[in-house]
Amino acid sequence: MKKYLLAPGPTAISPEVLLSMAQPILHHRAPEFVELLKRVKEDLKWLFKTENDVLIIASTGTGGMEGSVSNFLSPGDKALFVNGGKFGERWGKICKSYGVETVEIKVEWGCVVNPNDVAAALEKDPSIKAVFTQASETSTGVAHPIKEVAEVVRGYDHCLMVVDAISALGVFDVQTDAWGLDVVVSGSQKALALPPGLAFVSVSEKAWRQAEKTNNATFYFDFKKERAAIQKNQTAYTAAVSLIVGLEQSLKMMREEGLENIFARRALMAKALREGMTAIGLSSFPKEGASTSVTAISVPEGYDGQAIYKDLRVKYGITAAGGQDHLKGKVFRISNMGYLDTFDTIMAVAAVEMVLKAMGHPLTLGTGVGVAQEILLKK
Amino acid sequence: MKKYLLAPGPTAISPEVLLSMAQPILHHRAPEFVELLKRVKEDLKWLFKTENDVLIIASTGTGGMEGSVSNFLSPGDKALFVNGGKFGERWGKICKSYGVETVEIKVEWGCVVNPNDVAAALEKDPSIKAVFTQASETSTGVAHPIKEVAEVVRGYDHCLMVVDAISALGVFDVQTDAWGLDVVVSGSQKALALPPGLAFVSVSEKAWRQAEKTNNATFYFDFKKERAAIQKNQTAYTAAVSLIVGLEQSLKMMREEGLENIFARRALMAKALREGMTAIGLSSFPKEGASTSVTAISVPEGYDGQAIYKDLRVKYGITAAGGQDHLKGKVFRISNMGYLDTFDTIMAVAAVEMVLKAMGHPLTLGTGVGVAQEILLKK
Repeated sequence: MKKYLLAPGPTAISPEVLLSMAQPILHHRAPEFVELLKRVKEDLKWLFKTENDVLIIASTGTGGMEGSVSNFLSPGDKALFVNGGKFGERWGKICKSYGVETVEIKVEWGCVVNPNDVAAALEKDPSIKAVFTQASETSTGVAHPIKEVAEVVRGYDHCLMVVDAISALGVFDVQTDAWGLDVVVSGSQKALALPPGLAFVSVSEKAWRQAEKTNNATFYFDFKKERAAIQKNQTAYTAAVSLIVGLEQSLKMMREEGLENIFARRALMAKALREGMTAIGLSSFPKEGASTSVTAISVPEGYDGQAIYKDLRVKYGITAAGGQDHLKGKVFRISNMGYLDTFDTIMAVAAVEMVLKAMGHPLTLGTGVGVAQEILLKK
Repeated sequence: MKKYLLAPGPTAISPEVLLSMAQPILHHRAPEFVELLKRVKEDLKWLFKTENDVLIIASTGTGGMEGSVSNFLSPGDKALFVNGGKFGERWGKICKSYGVETVEIKVEWGCVVNPNDVAAALEKDPSIKAVFTQASETSTGVAHPIKEVAEVVRGYDHCLMVVDAISALGVFDVQTDAWGLDVVVSGSQKALALPPGLAFVSVSEKAWRQAEKTNNATFYFDFKKERAAIQKNQTAYTAAVSLIVGLEQSLKMMREEGLENIFARRALMAKALREGMTAIGLSSFPKEGASTSVTAISVPEGYDGQAIYKDLRVKYGITAAGGQDHLKGKVFRISNMGYLDTFDTIMAVAAVEMVLKAMGHPLTLGTGVGVAQEILLKK
């Protein structure tokens, strides 16, 4: 059966990237690779919209998240984290591992954080040294208003704004410098449409100053060491060479399309998917701030989300994603990231229609597809 | 110019592996990938000669080394490390980052550790909780007698034998279980002839018991979490899927050849390289215990090792390695790991002859090659 990857990471990879990585490998200290890193680091700054150094680390995004705690906070320091899903929760767990005291803003799954709540928490406890949040919470399909949260955090000289943009960067606008995001983490296997194994982290001057004062154990994720290395177009330890070769190709394709065009295209695809689903009686799970990275779809009364997700895979070769934790069975998720375009969205709507129809749902086949087509025609 | 990779990591990759990784990517929770991990983990046990779980981590080898400190020792614990080169030194640095007190056995570069020195150190200080060493020290081309060191360590119930086998495993014999090696670390970009980005760690029951008592900060390198995951044929965080697909192919090829055959072939190639070099007046740098993973060659009086290394690259497209730290200029290094066979060794000898000849060395071209051929004929 032909296979399709519509999961929110790893995402589908272009043949151009796959073949670039299939070339004989370069040595990580070879002049050609040093030149390549020099180009790639500039491309990453373009993607992050920053003049800060962007570190390239051989780990998945979680490693970048861990380093974003351990490099900037010491045991006993206090941090605030926004917990509106699985990945928000992860910030809290990492802080705990490092002995960082946490203030939690619990956000109902499917909702966005209210910047006023962050403002109130910071006002109440001025010893908070960092605010951790997601730009896009993959588990719920919600995009938090990080620009507005950053505005709040910027009022506190000693407090860093740390953003997990793993499933956001390259899908919708994240303006690292203009919005004052001190630390932004991303990864290879989402919008960049590469295999998992690379984390990217941009770090502001404010954050570097804070890093001077921390005393947590770091070695592999020692950002200071990585900063010194990337300034010489190197990585501190052996680079994940083949993934970085793929990264250059992926970033080249993104530059050709242009960031604003990418954002518009992804937004249109996400809208087509959401409205296609609505047309057949399903609904978008987020109550607000639906992310254009991944669409979480609520399952109609009497249907099982896990069964829909499974049928997509078994009957049609489509790997999407189910719900996590208490959303298991209640939602399924379809990615809008990776090497996907117009007809992948149409396929997704068509496949969900066919799966539901076979389950006895009274929908009229083609209804959702027609709505999606209508929207995608506007491209 | 045609390119050749003779560096001690990343090493040359076979077309079979490169193309396996160029296939459309699998999702890390897809049933096909879970099945693949199940096969791969058994193959890794075969490679490690162990019944212990072998963890698969999305980082380079250094991440595996870090986890081998942080998971088994607490701040204030004492550990012994063998420092006979750059990578031995790294054990000490990692311990320091984690507040582990260290006892250092300094070994002259080019020499092996004396197991009696380890015995004396453990006897003198029974509070030592782990001994860290390399199986093959890549910076000097020396293989330490880890079997004998492990025999010493085995006498201490509360002391772990931790081996960096990153550039050893799959080149020469490392018997994890039979020799009582508690923690063995390896990586993808050496003998396994894969791109960098995977670390492998086998952990004994004795080590897992010690891990219960430690309180260092670990999150990404939390071995307990990885153990629970691999037992379910998963990884704790997103797996480096494409590299693991390549890993299956690489291990398949290794199983076809057979471990003992691989060891014999590598040993013969290393011998041919060493004796070919000797025949033209160069010498093997190690005074004892020359590793069959990488050959460090001392440069003749009046020649510059960095210039030889550079000429190999610039004139002939061969990436080898120079010397590190105080060996810079005094040695160059040629790998015996990766997708290399008989005629790569012959190429290496021929190229060094040609580079030296052009520098004015009085050697007779073909002398070293003839000696290498003679040895390789015995295959």
